[in-house]
Amino acid sequence: MSTYAARTKEELKQELAQVQSHFDELKAKKLSLNMARGKPGKAQLDLVSDILTVLTDPAQCISDGIEARNYGELTGLPAAKRLFAEILGCKPEECFIGGNASLTLMYDTISKAYTHGLLHSEKPWSQLPKVKFLCPCPGYDRHFKITESFGAEMINIPMTATGPDMDLVEELIRDPEVKGMWCVPKYSNPDGIVYSAETVHRIASMKPAAPDFLLMWDNAYCIHEFDGDFVPFEDILTLCREAGNPDMVFEYASTSKITLPGAGVSVMAASVDNQKYMESLLTIQTISYDKVNQLRHVLYLKDKAHTLELMKKHAAIMLPKFKCVLRWLDSQIEPLGIASWQRPKGGYFVSVNTTPGLAKRTLALCKEAGVVMTGAGATFPYGKDPQDSNIRIAPSLPPVEELEQAMDVFCTCLKLAALEQKLA
Amino acid sequence: MSTYAARTKEELKQELAQVQSHFDELKAKKLSLNMARGKPGKAQLDLVSDILTVLTDPAQCISDGIEARNYGELTGLPAAKRLFAEILGCKPEECFIGGNASLTLMYDTISKAYTHGLLHSEKPWSQLPKVKFLCPCPGYDRHFKITESFGAEMINIPMTATGPDMDLVEELIRDPEVKGMWCVPKYSNPDGIVYSAETVHRIASMKPAAPDFLLMWDNAYCIHEFDGDFVPFEDILTLCREAGNPDMVFEYASTSKITLPGAGVSVMAASVDNQKYMESLLTIQTISYDKVNQLRHVLYLKDKAHTLELMKKHAAIMLPKFKCVLRWLDSQIEPLGIASWQRPKGGYFVSVNTTPGLAKRTLALCKEAGVVMTGAGATFPYGKDPQDSNIRIAPSLPPVEELEQAMDVFCTCLKLAALEQKLA
Repeated sequence: MSTYAARTKEELKQELAQVQSHFDELKAKKLSLNMARGKPGKAQLDLVSDILTVLTDPAQCISDGIEARNYGELTGLPAAKRLFAEILGCKPEECFIGGNASLTLMYDTISKAYTHGLLHSEKPWSQLPKVKFLCPCPGYDRHFKITESFGAEMINIPMTATGPDMDLVEELIRDPEVKGMWCVPKYSNPDGIVYSAETVHRIASMKPAAPDFLLMWDNAYCIHEFDGDFVPFEDILTLCREAGNPDMVFEYASTSKITLPGAGVSVMAASVDNQKYMESLLTIQTISYDKVNQLRHVLYLKDKAHTLELMKKHAAIMLPKFKCVLRWLDSQIEPLGIASWQRPKGGYFVSVNTTPGLAKRTLALCKEAGVVMTGAGATFPYGKDPQDSNIRIAPSLPPVEELEQAMDVFCTCLKLAALEQKLA
Repeated sequence: MSTYAARTKEELKQELAQVQSHFDELKAKKLSLNMARGKPGKAQLDLVSDILTVLTDPAQCISDGIEARNYGELTGLPAAKRLFAEILGCKPEECFIGGNASLTLMYDTISKAYTHGLLHSEKPWSQLPKVKFLCPCPGYDRHFKITESFGAEMINIPMTATGPDMDLVEELIRDPEVKGMWCVPKYSNPDGIVYSAETVHRIASMKPAAPDFLLMWDNAYCIHEFDGDFVPFEDILTLCREAGNPDMVFEYASTSKITLPGAGVSVMAASVDNQKYMESLLTIQTISYDKVNQLRHVLYLKDKAHTLELMKKHAAIMLPKFKCVLRWLDSQIEPLGIASWQRPKGGYFVSVNTTPGLAKRTLALCKEAGVVMTGAGATFPYGKDPQDSNIRIAPSLPPVEELEQAMDVFCTCLKLAALEQKLA
C-alpha cells in the first residue's frame, strides 16, 4: 500500500470508487454513534456506582465535627480538602472544594476577574480596553469558549511535544494586556501531551508584565493514566511560590472522570492569599456547596492510594478503546500519509492532524454516516483551525464493538476527504 | 406593668438595676446560642435524611430515558422540572434546575446582566455609568450583598403590611437607570409578610423605563407554612406574561428548607425566551448540574401533594419555636412599649422593630451574653438601618430548650438597651 501522494490519478480514482462504495455501505447501516465528548461509558458509570450507597446513615454525616447536612463551610469539608491536597500535592488550606463542575470554578474565576478583578488587579478586566489570553492549541474548546464569552482576544500558542511553545509565551507575556493562559498540563486536551518538567518550570517562573496574570492550570487528567502506572507530577503551587509567583496560578481538578460525571466534586487550588480573596467574592454567591456529596466522595475514594487503585479499573475499561482507535489509524490511515496522531498514555482523547484542509470535510462525512465527532475547529480559539486539520477523537463513550464501527466510518471518511481533495 | 415611656426616672433606675442583675446572671452562664441564620435544626435534618437512601441502585438512574449518572442536560432532568413547575404553578419548560443553591442562580443572573446583559439589554450593565436597584426593606441581606458587590446603587423601599410600597416603586421605575427589584413575595425575609394579590398584580403590571428591568422574585418560602394550611399563590410568570411583561421576571426557589440545606436542588423559572437566552450563557459555565441529586429529590419528594405533607412535618418542628419567640416577646416586651413585631405564619423569621436606636446596642449585649443574632442593619442595603431599629430573629436552629434561654437573653438585652437610652 503506497501513500496517496505517491499514487497516480488513475489509482486514486480506483481507490475513490472503493472507498465511496464502502462509505455507502456504512451509511446504509444508519448508525448513530458518538465520539464527540470525553464522556465516560456505561461500564465506567457502573464501576463507580457504589458511591450511591456509601452514605446512607445520618450518623455518618458529621465530618471533623461539621454537620454535612446543614448550611455552612463555604470552602468545603476539611476531609475533602485533605483528599484533594494529597492527590494534587498541595496543602489542604490551598484547596477550595466546589460543586459538581471544575468548569464552573474556572468560569467563576474568569468572571470575577472581569467583574471585580483578581487579587493583584488594578481594576476589573471589564473596565480595560483590551484583555488578551494565551491559548495553547489544539486545546479544550470549553476553555476557549469562556474567554471568548467575556470578549478576550485569544492568541494561539502552538503545542510542541513538551507542551506550549514557551519561547513564544515568554515573549508575549511582556505585553501587559496579556492577562492569562490556559493550560492542561497532564494529558493535554486533546493531544494527550504531558508538559515536560522544563516546560512546567518555565511556566512557573514566568515574569508577566501584568501584575494579575492568571495561569489557568486545569489538571483535569492528573491521575487519569489508562496505559501504565501513575505518572507523578510536581505541585504547580509550590513551583510558582518558589519562583516568586505565589498568586499567579489557579489549579483545577474534579472527580468527574473518577466517580460519576456531573455528580462529582471539584477543587480549585491556589495560594492562601488567593483563597482568602476568592472567598470574599464567593461568599456573596453561595452559602456552601454540597457537603453531603463531598462527604460521599471522601468515604468512597478514601485517599490517594485508594483513588489510584480505582483509576486502574477505569484504565482497564479505557485501554481497549484507545487500542481500537490506534489499531484502525495505524492499519488504515498510516500507510496513506494523510494524517498523523498522538499516542497518549492517559486522558480522554486521540488528537489526529490531517493533511491541511481535510478536517471539516471528514467530520461532515462522518455526520452523514451517523457518527458524531467534536466539531472541526473546536480545538482552536473561536473554533477556527487555521489549517483545518485537527480532529479530536473521544473514544470513551461507545463500547468497543460500537467503536470498531465508528472508527471504520472515521477512517473511511478521512480517506474520502483526502481523495476528494487530491482529485479536485 | 407600665410602658417605659410612662415611668419616672426613679422607676426606670430601679428597673435597670433588676434587668442588669438578670443580665449578669445570664452572662455568667456562658451561653453559646445561635439565632443568626435561617438554618434548620437537627430535628429537621433527621426528618428528611431518608433522602440519603432513596437512590442507591444504578438501575434507578435512568429518568425519562436520560442517564442521570453521566454528563448532559444543562437545564436539568425533565422530572425535576415537572416537580418544581407543579409547586410554582408554572410550566416545566419554564424551569431551569440548578445546583444546591438558588442564591447561586440569583448571583449568576445578576452577574450575567453585568458581564453580558440580559435578553433585552442594550449593553452589559458593567458598561453603564449607573445601575440602580430597588430593595424593599427590611429584606434579605444576601440579596443586598449581591447587588452591592456589583456596585449597584440600592434604593430602600419601605415594606408595608401588603408588601413593598408600590406607589414609590411605580414612581421610581420611570427612571431608566432603575434596572431591577428584589422581592420575597411569600413570608418575606425577615417580616414574614405575604404580598397581597393587589401588590403582586401591580408588580407584574409595572411599566419600567428600563427595557431590561429585572424582577428578582425569590420565592424561597413558597410552601413554608409553619402555622396553618398551605396558602396558594399566583404564578408570577403567568401574571407578568398576561400584563405584557413576559421576560421581566426571574423566579427562584430551592429545596434547601424542604430537604437537606446545602445539599438540595434549586430552580430558576422564567419565560422560555429568557431560558433560551440564559442557556446560551450558562452552557459556557457548566456542562450540567448534579442530576443524580435532582433525581434523588424527585424520588423523595414525588409531587406537590407529597411535598406539602412533608412541609407539615417541618411545621410541627418549627411552630413551637415561633410560639416560644412570640411568648417571650408578648410577655416581656409588649407591655413596655419598646418594640413591635410581626406574627408570621410561615417562613423562617420574626422581625422585631425596636424604638429607634436600640438594635445595634441590643445585639451587642446579646453577643456579650453568648447569643449570636443576625447583625444589626443586615436587613437593609449596605447594612445601614436608618432607624437602627430592625432585628431579625431566626429561631429555627436551636432546640426549644435553648431557644427559651436565648429569648430570655434577647428580651433582657432589649430592655437593657432601652433603659440605657432612656437614662442617658
